Amino acid sequence: MGLSQQGKVCLVGAGPGDPDLLTVKAARTLTLADVVLHDALVSAEVLALASPRAKVMNVGKRCGRKSISQDQINRLLVQFARAGALVVRLKSGDPSIFGRTGGEIEVLQEAGIEVEIVPGVTASMAAAAKIGVSLTDRRRADQLVFVSAHHSHEKQNCDWPTFLNSRTTVVVYMPGDYKGVASELRRAGLSGSTPCAIVSKVSSPDEQWHRTTLASLHCAPIMPSPCVLIVGETVSPVASDKSHTPILQSIPFREDFRESPVQPAEL
Amino acid sequence: MGLSQQGKVCLVGAGPGDPDLLTVKAARTLTLADVVLHDALVSAEVLALASPRAKVMNVGKRCGRKSISQDQINRLLVQFARAGALVVRLKSGDPSIFGRTGGEIEVLQEAGIEVEIVPGVTASMAAAAKIGVSLTDRRRADQLVFVSAHHSHEKQNCDWPTFLNSRTTVVVYMPGDYKGVASELRRAGLSGSTPCAIVSKVSSPDEQWHRTTLASLHCAPIMPSPCVLIVGETVSPVASDKSHTPILQSIPFREDFRESPVQPAEL
Repeated sequence: MGLSQQGKVCLVGAGPGDPDLLTVKAARTLTLADVVLHDALVSAEVLALASPRAKVMNVGKRCGRKSISQDQINRLLVQFARAGALVVRLKSGDPSIFGRTGGEIEVLQEAGIEVEIVPGVTASMAAAAKIGVSLTDRRRADQLVFVSAHHSHEKQNCDWPTFLNSRTTVVVYMPGDYKGVASELRRAGLSGSTPCAIVSKVSSPDEQWHRTTLASLHCAPIMPSPCVLIVGETVSPVASDKSHTPILQSIPFREDFRESPVQPAEL
Repeated sequence: MGLSQQGKVCLVGAGPGDPDLLTVKAARTLTLADVVLHDALVSAEVLALASPRAKVMNVGKRCGRKSISQDQINRLLVQFARAGALVVRLKSGDPSIFGRTGGEIEVLQEAGIEVEIVPGVTASMAAAAKIGVSLTDRRRADQLVFVSAHHSHEKQNCDWPTFLNSRTTVVVYMPGDYKGVASELRRAGLSGSTPCAIVSKVSSPDEQWHRTTLASLHCAPIMPSPCVLIVGETVSPVASDKSHTPILQSIPFREDFRESPVQPAEL
């Protein structure tokens, strides 16, 4: 094996935790990997899909501290790929959403190493699925904004949206300090009565969620990481809009749905 | 079979088109379905995973016209579930992102029918993966905004963001009229030099993409639907930030990555 037989790096979205929420491609890529470098948040159930012969390394943060620097991760990716390995860089959720993927892509491209990105299910979409809401429900929202509270705390400049109207759904990844987040969102224009949902460890066996409002967000229980906070009228648990035709009335009962073709015109 | 053996409805994200980008759960649910009601954008390759014994119906738009109304779709969902079927309502991408899912969830809940939502990979994340960018690259963006151009055209009120700074990535689903979209985004504060990428039919065999700037967006070629437009500095194809440590230099060559444990401390 030599440089002429260069490997490649796959940046793979591990989804929110449940291995059933991996894409088919992500699951297959993981089983084929020679080396897996994963973030701390990737679940043990997902990692269990890697081949027993694969080298599996946690390169993520532990208790907020990096056990290995980003430069070291970059070097490992290049080193393993140059040695001919199929390297999976496994990121929680989707690689393009708060996954710190940009720098790794550039380093690999500059090193002339083949890179493939396998998208994944991001935590907020799994959270929306779990609590039964549409993040862009058009009766209640025109736009959807993703921010990361953690992200902003690393910088001097405020990176919170400066103006939000009531027809915006805001998703906050790693919300951390609820009081600070609520304050920022109210300053940007959202009212205290705006519904909120915090979803913890979505899709894991111990997932949990809590519904509240922006005004009461600071009283919300602290739940295990990772959490995602969804804020907006789309989070309302019960519909107030009854514009659809009532459907509880006499719908003909059919036992033969598998055999006889039902045409829309019949309804 | 009777009402006591009620079925259920699974609202399933079909992903962007490639069946490999279905989640494992979505693929399995599809193979088990008795009835599949799908949007027009769901690919034939994904539909091919349904059981031959399943009733498969396209309830989406054709050439912009609905062949069946939303109320009729709601009635079908309830009818089939009451008849005991496992009904898959298959939506392109992720059900919570511009999938018009909100009303269907409410109707089913009001009818007392079990609903499960299976999240999926949304088109913008597959598009970001394809063109090799991070939508939230923290060197270039603080927030990510999702809007649907199609959505806004149905209403009198403008639902475009009113203020966007240069550290925002904007994803426009169904961008349609590029000139109008560019005008709205420039009015909201983005400069004409902001990089843009339009990705057409991402993950399908005939996917294609085009890079341009906001000022030149109106000259972009019209590509087959569905398209997603990504606007922001995160779309820049080449890094200008060279703050990472150069890695092209002497990285030790290893052939033994599978056997010998490499510890970060060795690097």
